[in-house]
Amino acid sequence: MAAMAYAPAFAQTDPLPSWNDGATKASITDFVARVTKEGGTDFVAHSERIAVFDNDGTLWCEQPVYFQLAFAFDQIKTMAPKHPEWSSQQPFKALLTKDRQALAAAGEKGLLQVMAATHTGMTTEDFSRSVLDWLSTARHPRFNRPYNEMIYLPMGELLAYLRANGFKTFVVSGGGVEFMRPWMEKAYGIPPEQVVGSSGVTQFKTGADGRPVLMKQPKVEFIDDGPGKASGINRFIGRRPILAFGNSDGDQQMLQWTAAGPGARFLGIVHHTDATREYAYDRPSKIGQLDKAWDEAVQRGWTVVDMAKDWKTVFAFERGSTGAAQ
Amino acid sequence: MAAMAYAPAFAQTDPLPSWNDGATKASITDFVARVTKEGGTDFVAHSERIAVFDNDGTLWCEQPVYFQLAFAFDQIKTMAPKHPEWSSQQPFKALLTKDRQALAAAGEKGLLQVMAATHTGMTTEDFSRSVLDWLSTARHPRFNRPYNEMIYLPMGELLAYLRANGFKTFVVSGGGVEFMRPWMEKAYGIPPEQVVGSSGVTQFKTGADGRPVLMKQPKVEFIDDGPGKASGINRFIGRRPILAFGNSDGDQQMLQWTAAGPGARFLGIVHHTDATREYAYDRPSKIGQLDKAWDEAVQRGWTVVDMAKDWKTVFAFERGSTGAAQ
Repeated sequence: MAAMAYAPAFAQTDPLPSWNDGATKASITDFVARVTKEGGTDFVAHSERIAVFDNDGTLWCEQPVYFQLAFAFDQIKTMAPKHPEWSSQQPFKALLTKDRQALAAAGEKGLLQVMAATHTGMTTEDFSRSVLDWLSTARHPRFNRPYNEMIYLPMGELLAYLRANGFKTFVVSGGGVEFMRPWMEKAYGIPPEQVVGSSGVTQFKTGADGRPVLMKQPKVEFIDDGPGKASGINRFIGRRPILAFGNSDGDQQMLQWTAAGPGARFLGIVHHTDATREYAYDRPSKIGQLDKAWDEAVQRGWTVVDMAKDWKTVFAFERGSTGAAQ
Repeated sequence: MAAMAYAPAFAQTDPLPSWNDGATKASITDFVARVTKEGGTDFVAHSERIAVFDNDGTLWCEQPVYFQLAFAFDQIKTMAPKHPEWSSQQPFKALLTKDRQALAAAGEKGLLQVMAATHTGMTTEDFSRSVLDWLSTARHPRFNRPYNEMIYLPMGELLAYLRANGFKTFVVSGGGVEFMRPWMEKAYGIPPEQVVGSSGVTQFKTGADGRPVLMKQPKVEFIDDGPGKASGINRFIGRRPILAFGNSDGDQQMLQWTAAGPGARFLGIVHHTDATREYAYDRPSKIGQLDKAWDEAVQRGWTVVDMAKDWKTVFAFERGSTGAAQ
């Protein structure tokens, strides 16, 4: 559905109407013009027009917490009636009673327990349904919108523009692949088979009705972050992209890997500079820290998108009759 | 290049000219007609037309040994000049001196040493080149053809026919994903990003020239065989296929997983019945054993292809001026 929202762009002269005119926008359209010009020096065949995008902070918002974590916290509440033992067990008790101090004390171990409880021990199909149920009811704490409306309109336009120019668009995210796939085709026009992410082990079992199921196991299989993003691209896509877009240091190796190929390349970073319409954060941020990758981007002349300056609109709902957030 | 060989099929009335007419061929064309008929009960949207194929024994030959193993053995010879220590080290010595007894004695541990020596410790790019070099020089011991000519013409036609009907075709093989990708686009028309296979860990490193590389590590990451094929489909494709083709018990769970979805399904098994044109093997075979999956196929009415009876041609080179193999 959301993917349809980009369609009007094609009826206009400007394929990126939510981007302000300027050097950033021009760097994108110039690149696309060069690699698609048959006979040109920088021409790239259709099959090699691979474009990869980080998700959290690049295609959708990642503040005040990664949305997958918000999902996990909400799931604890949803699942609590079937887990009476949680009322006296940390970190579950802390979450259910909103005891921030106890939650912080549970640390990373507590977080892993929350992830295991909410992301494993069920079939892949049941998990997928729980994600869609959550998206249909949960709301972003600041913007009061469903989380899948917290996607960046300019980036959605960019995805559609690239596809219209023969690119195959992929998500390459540190998020869980099973958390992302159920909604990304509608949100970004990116099918499940073009979503690369972190994953856990699944176990093939025959259910009581004789039907096979895949049970999600509490064992991490692959972390698609940092250097893992280069490995993930190699393993899942098997070709080097010619365009990569990220927003944080976790995307640095993905950008380096993309940059290292021959021929024309586009490397982009979304810089969160807009505290009014979204959030402003970079070097010292705990979520989406942008420090080393920013330095490299400046040094190597990669495109750094200044959200406040380069984006006419951030979220599609800003244009709606219900008014902008704040 | 090889993919071009199927093109003439479209100019004819028959999209599967290397298949003999009969129930097997009709089961395929009937299925495709049903799922592509708009408004029909069994219609399936383009995006859901996912077809998965095993490789060894399904798309190309797997006798007298898996071709990836033949590659590994040949690589030991190619690499030997740089490894003088191998002249006194098993299992390398056994391979270099063709000492079958010592090789057999090295067992599975020896095999893993051979795989580690030939498949790890180099960059993904160097490995890919070694596969292509091997394909350009090695010959199948019985048919004296490059291994990538040992592909089944009827299956190549089937892949092209499915794609012409809006299917997205994937390989889902126990073979190494990095061994398959370098040649599959030419051989089958299947791009790297639609090849699912077993994989090892890769490590991101910055080379001496500052360029990032991925080093292949001697650590198995994922075995895409048996129940792993259902997990692999879930992880790499993220959708349940509507058509699956295999040839051995290692494909049984992939077929079960595909069969378990709603709506029309096609499940196919290649039965190697042709000792004259290819090989004949099934229940007791060490390579490509077809036993339990065969029983299930018969019981559930899956299509079992009788290679001798159903295929007019097995290999494209049979039709060539250099004459049939034997």
